[in-house]
Amino acid sequence: MMKEKLTVVKIGGNIIESPNDLEQFLDRFALVQGHKILVHGGGKRATEIGAKLGVNSQYHQGRRITDRDSLDVAIMVYGGLVNKKITARLQAKNCNALGLSGADGGVILANKRPVTEIDFGLVGDIEEVRIDLLNTLLHNKIVPVFCALTHDRSGQLLNTNADTIASELAIGLSASYDTHLYYCFEKKGVLADLEDEDSVIPHINKINYQDLLEKQVISDGMLPKLHNCFNALEQQVGRIYIGNLTMFEPGSNLFTSITL
Amino acid sequence: MMKEKLTVVKIGGNIIESPNDLEQFLDRFALVQGHKILVHGGGKRATEIGAKLGVNSQYHQGRRITDRDSLDVAIMVYGGLVNKKITARLQAKNCNALGLSGADGGVILANKRPVTEIDFGLVGDIEEVRIDLLNTLLHNKIVPVFCALTHDRSGQLLNTNADTIASELAIGLSASYDTHLYYCFEKKGVLADLEDEDSVIPHINKINYQDLLEKQVISDGMLPKLHNCFNALEQQVGRIYIGNLTMFEPGSNLFTSITL
Repeated sequence: MMKEKLTVVKIGGNIIESPNDLEQFLDRFALVQGHKILVHGGGKRATEIGAKLGVNSQYHQGRRITDRDSLDVAIMVYGGLVNKKITARLQAKNCNALGLSGADGGVILANKRPVTEIDFGLVGDIEEVRIDLLNTLLHNKIVPVFCALTHDRSGQLLNTNADTIASELAIGLSASYDTHLYYCFEKKGVLADLEDEDSVIPHINKINYQDLLEKQVISDGMLPKLHNCFNALEQQVGRIYIGNLTMFEPGSNLFTSITL
Repeated sequence: MMKEKLTVVKIGGNIIESPNDLEQFLDRFALVQGHKILVHGGGKRATEIGAKLGVNSQYHQGRRITDRDSLDVAIMVYGGLVNKKITARLQAKNCNALGLSGADGGVILANKRPVTEIDFGLVGDIEEVRIDLLNTLLHNKIVPVFCALTHDRSGQLLNTNADTIASELAIGLSASYDTHLYYCFEKKGVLADLEDEDSVIPHINKINYQDLLEKQVISDGMLPKLHNCFNALEQQVGRIYIGNLTMFEPGSNLFTSITL
């Protein structure tokens, strides 16, 4: 039987922070046909609001540590402000959005990241995506909108990487749907030259990826994203695209597509 | 055909503000059999967090005005912090909670309250509860947890009275379920004497209500609650109870029950 199509889109912090970009994205997203899921990251808003509340982000070697107060700020800003506003905006565009964290309906189970040299704090590594409720929602033409929070089944919410949430959702649902995963951020795609916004690599597969790695073309920030992508493709996700808002324009071909 | 039972519980701000009371309530709520819905109010947390963010609540004759910044605080605190934490705690108690605002799934449509002598700001009066999605969730053994936010279908979230949300949900679902509505707050029930915590009026109906009104027994704060109750009962809600946490203890009879 032909699988129905599912589009999973992750939008990054820079899009969320610009009301114009966000509105433009949501207009496009509302027009995407078939089943769809949106995952949003956080961005600087939580840092700003945290600072006003006297909660300052702690970092270890450039990586954020999530203590109890920082998590509360993340829950307020990502789980509340950003998630509910996106949901309400989509509702206005005839898109039946429903905001979720991974705790809601127990959809995304995670474990607190084990402490090694670093304790990242209340950060979750995803253990399981439970697809039953998601299937029910999708079949009822609901559009789940996920913030980057999961839970540990013991009552603790956990900060979780939004890219990983998007890829794990896509992986979990690929058995049931022909799943296409879009990473939408501020750049036009994976760039061959970070200084040149137009140096988009149109296609990456496992063969030229090795080549790009050897030539050190891929930026450090992009490496975990691509690692996520190949992992997802190996687990039956159909197609993955990386690009900016123009990705969703009809006829656009300025983005990076990734295949095995 | 016998209708299945549905329990709708609204908990007030004082319970939310005490971690012990909240945990005790959630333990009891998780044990309630059959379909159930939780509605939570806000409490002082939003005022405290708002003050830290430089957002001060405005009042007109003792009634709160919701400006844009106050609404953002409400979305963060009620829609985010309180709602997601309650959801995660219930998940730990084997209660498959799913946090919602009225915008999620378009479940509660409201209109901005018309401006008369006072402009209450971004406050919603409920126009419609859409029960299709709620029925689907309840049939899938999901427990919806509502914060006191609705939307206007044009992308605007609106602050909405949690008592009203609870009664409108109960009314909307009464055609499909044998619906029991519980208002759980810090007092043991409707008191005959506000100075005497034990002066609970065990039963109020439309006949002795007139009597209580004439004798001015009912406190000002309780009047809109009871008005909500009679309105709900007239629209097929089966039973309504007002009391504190002990209401949910097996064999408890210290609360106020309200019938037509």
